[in-house]
Order: sequence, then C-alpha cells, then structure tokens
Amino acid sequence: MPKNENPGLRSKVLIVGCGFGGLEAARALAHAPVDITLVDRANHHLFQPLLYQVATAGLSAPAIAAPVRFLFRKQPNVTSLLGEVGAIDAAQKQARLIDGSALPYDHLIVAAGATHSYFGHDEWSAHAPGLKTLEDAFEIRRRLLLAFESAEKESDPARREAWLTFVVIGGGPTGVEMAGTMAEIARHTLPGEFRHIDPARARIVLVEGSPRVLQAMPESLSASAQHQLERLGVEVHVNARVTGIDAEGLDVDPAGDAPAYRIAARCIVWAAGVAASPLGRQLAEATGTQVDRAGRVVVLPDLSLPGHPEISVIGDLAAAQSHAPGREPRPVPGVSPAAKQMGRTAAGNIERRLRGEATQAFRYRDYGNLATIGRNSAVVDLATPVGPVRFSGVSAWLFWLFAHIYFLIGFRNRLVVLFDWASAYWSAQRYARVVAGIKPARSP
Amino acid sequence: MPKNENPGLRSKVLIVGCGFGGLEAARALAHAPVDITLVDRANHHLFQPLLYQVATAGLSAPAIAAPVRFLFRKQPNVTSLLGEVGAIDAAQKQARLIDGSALPYDHLIVAAGATHSYFGHDEWSAHAPGLKTLEDAFEIRRRLLLAFESAEKESDPARREAWLTFVVIGGGPTGVEMAGTMAEIARHTLPGEFRHIDPARARIVLVEGSPRVLQAMPESLSASAQHQLERLGVEVHVNARVTGIDAEGLDVDPAGDAPAYRIAARCIVWAAGVAASPLGRQLAEATGTQVDRAGRVVVLPDLSLPGHPEISVIGDLAAAQSHAPGREPRPVPGVSPAAKQMGRTAAGNIERRLRGEATQAFRYRDYGNLATIGRNSAVVDLATPVGPVRFSGVSAWLFWLFAHIYFLIGFRNRLVVLFDWASAYWSAQRYARVVAGIKPARSP
Repeated sequence: MPKNENPGLRSKVLIVGCGFGGLEAARALAHAPVDITLVDRANHHLFQPLLYQVATAGLSAPAIAAPVRFLFRKQPNVTSLLGEVGAIDAAQKQARLIDGSALPYDHLIVAAGATHSYFGHDEWSAHAPGLKTLEDAFEIRRRLLLAFESAEKESDPARREAWLTFVVIGGGPTGVEMAGTMAEIARHTLPGEFRHIDPARARIVLVEGSPRVLQAMPESLSASAQHQLERLGVEVHVNARVTGIDAEGLDVDPAGDAPAYRIAARCIVWAAGVAASPLGRQLAEATGTQVDRAGRVVVLPDLSLPGHPEISVIGDLAAAQSHAPGREPRPVPGVSPAAKQMGRTAAGNIERRLRGEATQAFRYRDYGNLATIGRNSAVVDLATPVGPVRFSGVSAWLFWLFAHIYFLIGFRNRLVVLFDWASAYWSAQRYARVVAGIKPARSP
Repeated sequence: MPKNENPGLRSKVLIVGCGFGGLEAARALAHAPVDITLVDRANHHLFQPLLYQVATAGLSAPAIAAPVRFLFRKQPNVTSLLGEVGAIDAAQKQARLIDGSALPYDHLIVAAGATHSYFGHDEWSAHAPGLKTLEDAFEIRRRLLLAFESAEKESDPARREAWLTFVVIGGGPTGVEMAGTMAEIARHTLPGEFRHIDPARARIVLVEGSPRVLQAMPESLSASAQHQLERLGVEVHVNARVTGIDAEGLDVDPAGDAPAYRIAARCIVWAAGVAASPLGRQLAEATGTQVDRAGRVVVLPDLSLPGHPEISVIGDLAAAQSHAPGREPRPVPGVSPAAKQMGRTAAGNIERRLRGEATQAFRYRDYGNLATIGRNSAVVDLATPVGPVRFSGVSAWLFWLFAHIYFLIGFRNRLVVLFDWASAYWSAQRYARVVAGIKPARSP
C-alpha cells in the first residue's frame, strides 16, 4: 500500500500522548484520508490498570507495555515519534517539542493525561512515590522488596517494625489494589524465606481521607471492599487525613475529636491524587480556555476548544461532560473506558469536519465500575439496561480478571499475563521479584 | 524441621556471591551440619548466559533472574543476605560489609566473580557499556532501541547513519550473540515500523582484536561462526584493535600495514574484557596469596589458599588448575560449568574437613563449548568420551536452545523462556522492547 497518495493534500493530524485516548483516536482514523503523527514521551503504550502488578512484582514490565510503533506497524498513515511536547502554539498550528523541534498540524488531539498530585506538598514525593509510569512501578517494587531485606538485617525492634510497616495513601482503586496485594505478598509469598523476621507479621495500612474506600462505587460495595481488605490483613483507616510524610513515616489527622497520630513506616505509596498534565494549562492559556481546579481543560460538548475547532482535548486532561439525549449533561469520570470513547469521538469529529459535516457531542457510555482487592477478592458494579448488577468476592474477582485480560493490548501479552497469573495463583509466588542496580548502603 | 539443633556447635559457612559457583556451593551443603550465610549485592541469581537476550529485548528481566531467598526457601540451613562485602579480615575470620557490619565465619567461600575491564581505559565505559548485570542489560537495551528512535527523527544523513551503526567490541560468545541478535532486530523485527528510515539498512559491526571470533573454539567453528554472522548481515572486523572510544564512535587500528580507521557509531557495546572482582586483590593481600594478571586469586589444587585451608576461592575470581589423574594440571576456563563444579568441590572439601578427612584437588570436567549467533545459527563443540563432536547451523542452534533452557533455574522460568522464544521465533517479534524512564533531550 502506498504510504501517501497525495501528501500535499492530506490533512495532518497530530496526537499528543499514546495512552488509552490517543491510541484509540489514532486507530479510529486508520482509514481516514489523513497523515497522523503520534508523539509520546515513552516508547510504549502502558496498560495502566495492571501497573500495580508490576509495582508488586506480579508481572514483568513487558507484559503490560507494548511498543507504540509496533502497535501501528500495519497502519501506514501513522508516524510514531518519541518526544515530549512542551507547548502548543495554537496561532501557528504547531506543537513545540522540548528538544526544540516543532510539529505542524491541521487537527490536534491532546491526550497528555495526568500525573500524581501531592496537593501542594511536592516534598512528599521523595518519601511516597506515586504510580503512573513503569519507572514509578520499578521504584515502588524496589522499596517494597528491599524493606523486607532491611528488616531481615535490622536488630533494633522498633526500626525493624518500621521496615515492616507498609502504608498506602488513598483508598481509590489503585490504593485498594496496592494494599491488598502487599498483604498477599506478606502473608502468602514471602513466608519461609526469611530467618530473622516473619513477613506474615508485616503491617499493611490503607489511609483514606473520606469516610469510605472506593468512593466511585455504591456504599454497599465500599463496605464489602473494606471487609475483604480487612480479611486479607489490611488495616483500613478511613476519615484519616495525612498531614505530613517524611523518610521515617507519616502523620495522620483523623476526623472529629480523635487525636492525631503517627505511623512509623519506611515504605509508603501515594495513591491519593492526580493532577492534569501541565500541558493542559499551557494550552488553555494559549487558546483562552478555562481549566478546572485539577488543571483539566474545560472542553466544548464535542471535545474541542472554544474558537479552536481544530483542537480536541480528551482523556484525563479534559474536563468533559457527557451529553445524552434528553438528559442533563454529566461530568465524565477519569477512567480508561471514558478516554477511549473520547478518542473515538474526537477522531470521528475530525472526519466529520473533513467532510464538511457538523461535529457530534460526546456521550459517555458507562458500563460500570470494578476494582480488585487481592486473591479471590474484588467488587463489580455493572450498569446494564435493566439496572445495576453488583457483586463481590470470588465471582467478582474472576470477572475482573477476564475483563482485564480481554482488554490488554495484543494477543501475545494476554497469554503471558494469563500464564503469569495462573502460576502465581497456584503457587502464591510472584514472578518478578527482581530489583536491578541495588546500591548497598555504605557505612557513614 | 528445627532450624538449628545446636547453634553453638555448628560451623559457620559464609559464601560471598550468588552466581553459579556460590549457588552451587550452598546447594551442595544442604545436608551438611553447617549454618550457611549467603551474601550477594543483588537480590537475585542471574542466569548470565541469557543476559544478552534481556539487553536485546528478547526476554524480560524476571525470566532470567530468580530471587536468591526464594531459591533457598526450602533449605533451612541457608540465611540469605543482601549486602556488599568490602573486605575479608582473614585474621579475625570475618567479612566486612560496606555498610559497616561484619559476618564471622569458620569456612569461607569467595565467589565474587568478575566485572568488565577496559584495559586501563575506564573513560570508555560511558560510551561502550559492558554486560554483566541486569542494570547493564537495561542500559544497552535503552541505547539500542533509542538509537533507532533518534535515527527516525534525524534529518542529517551522516548523523542518521551514525545512529544506525551498531558496534560490538569483542568476538567472544557474548559479542557474537549480541552482534547476531542486533542484526536480527534490524532485519527482522523492526522493518515496517518506521516511516523515515529503513532499519534493515542498519550497519552492525563486530570488532575483534585477534585473528578470529570465538577463540576458545576450534578454528573450523570460528570460521563457521564468522560465516553465519556475515550471512545475518554483520560486518566482522578481525585483527582489529580498538584504540579510542568516544560519544560519536570509535577508532580502530588493524594489524599489519592497513591504515587506522574510524567508525561513526552511537551505540557501542563492550564485550571484550573481564577482570576479577576487586575483592580478589584485597583477599590476596590479606592472606599473602598471589593474583594473576587478570586479578584472579591463585588457589591451591583444592581451591583453598596457602596457609588458609578455611578459605576457598571459586568461579571467575579463581586462577585454578584442573588436576586429572595422570595428566598435567591445566588452567580452568572462566565458564559457568567450571564455576558450578568448583562450587561443588569447595563444598565437598568443607564437609571433608569437618569429618577430619583430606581435601580433594579440583578436577574440571569439560563437556564442551557452545555459542549461539542468531536465528537458526550456532556452533557446538562437544567433548565426548569418543572424541570431539562438532556441528553448526540449525541443529547447533536447537541444541544450544534446549541446553540453555534446561539449565535455567526453576521450572517456572524455563517455561516462560521457552514460550517467549517460540513466539519470538514465529513472529520475529521481540517481546521486551520497553524502555522505562526515558528522559527526552531538551534543546540547549
């Protein structure tokens, strides 16, 4: 197939970011008469819902990451580029990369996603890494595994206990998954391997500021999730606000009259807040658009920007509304199905504009919500035409498992992940307990 | 089983390093009345013969690395410890860790291995990383994959060509494997994925100072290996001494009257020289032992040190001789079967000393030599009771494949590696083409 029949005549589509939204937009334009450039900071698309498995040594990185250019090797209208966009020049219709080069566009889709936010306490990031990239996952895996190693060598009981205390801040899906899996590792994977400590006695604490975990779920499922966590051996602290984090632990302020307390812990994971990519704010300034409190760009119903029909913002970077006929517009949640749907709508609107048709408003189809907690534990809240279907426990866990494997990118990875999980399930072992480049402490 | 019936009465065995030698020694002492401490800088045993597959994105790190303490979870007389030994205090019978702590011993086995050597040109290491650890493999993978990304973005033809020139220095087994696999990636994996370059036109150069590759092999197999490399598209430069390496390429001085030349290349891999761990020199000084030119400790026939029967040195750190009855002693090569055999001899000698028996001299059983080159290409030189058996090509490649999978640690990993290879073979794809934490270049 010729790459490009009429290079001068075809529209240039630039897609910034190859998460779920950007990937889906590029795929949806496979047969459109456009030349697509897909630019991302990483060389891979990451299946983020399973990133916590890399952080907890259950999966290797390649099992959940596929090279972007491999994914588009058979779509000749896509050029994949490794690079970081620093700014959008809406007047010149080009994106400026931080290496100094520029990418011109006729149509732009910005899908740069979100990063973690420490609510103004960036100094906490050194002590409580978040989980967004593979590098983050490796850092958490390193801290998690080396904490047990340090505990094995520590002779002071209080210090040993701090090495054996693991705290996850934030009771959303990622926090619940992390805490549940940490408990599994401590109770099922490591026992028998140490001679001076009992890993099963490790303390796993989940700290959540609101009154319940999994706030996006109905209350009954939140309660079920908390119960399942506690059964796995996780201490769940709700209504507990974190007021300080340092190298030795964290300070917690409970709601009401309860006194503030401190948890001595050497491995702390941040799963509490996300903020939109800084590119959103720059884009908003360049186009006179609003951003919301989380830094997301407030888009029009068709996901484009006021006065800039050629620019769409999608995924976690967009503050979008769902427009269903005969219903009030509703905010779109920051979940991967929403990002994918926005990608398809933005791509379709580019095709409509090329054909001289009117664009369509975005409508989010909510198929429900699910979260896993650990071995045999999950909660599922499905939206079906006959109303919600809710269940938890083993059946929910199996549902979660197959849903995630089904949506994994690429046949190869699905098989690998299924195989890794099956073997992890039967052996309670975790495959990827490997830390590269350990720098042992030197005496002062 | 109680861990320790008579703690005060059992001998303390300290093993430094969990490569092939240290691992085998600890396993051989499973039923000995000793308490073993196994200390290593890494938390994993690495199956080094397949490390080049991690560097070339064919395997994920966990596929060839198993946690040390997992390997010994069912051997209660082993305590595994993460730490780096800085020095041996032979008078006090203890090893000093660089974190300031000390480990006492009654019997010591030092199996600290080797690192790469730049023959006095340590400044080359920044431009031509070697391949010894997982971290090394990740660094080479990063450079290899990002070179193609940079070439895709480069508009200057000379600079683009430098990005597409890959040089491996050293024609031993690792160098041959690296060069062959790089050629495979360029010719079979990447074509079709780029829009501005043709990866199949990448130049792969193998530079070897001596007259032939695979010097440990018979000449006929060296010739076959070179032929197979050239068929895969590798330029083989023999009799070519490297005189300089910098960020933009390397300088080569051929033997005889041929003029020196330069190769402009941005991805250079060092597979030329190894040197013993610095711990060898310290140990030799502390015990009044000799080291050879490569820094290896010259051991007695039973692998112990003169005047220190309680200390054995094994593996790549030992300059050992093989003592077969009725034959002249012969130097032992630095290969993994030799390290494992030394581990068993050193362990057996500890048991003999505990029983008051005389120690045994080490005898190396050479089962032969094999090296892979690429898809369907390898050379095998087997030592059999009826004389050497030599073959190359597809049959050698299959032999190599199954031999390596057989010797992989742990049932789980064998299956994973076999599965990864089968799928890589049929699809020409490479599974682990993932680079974490890319820092895109900024404009100056």
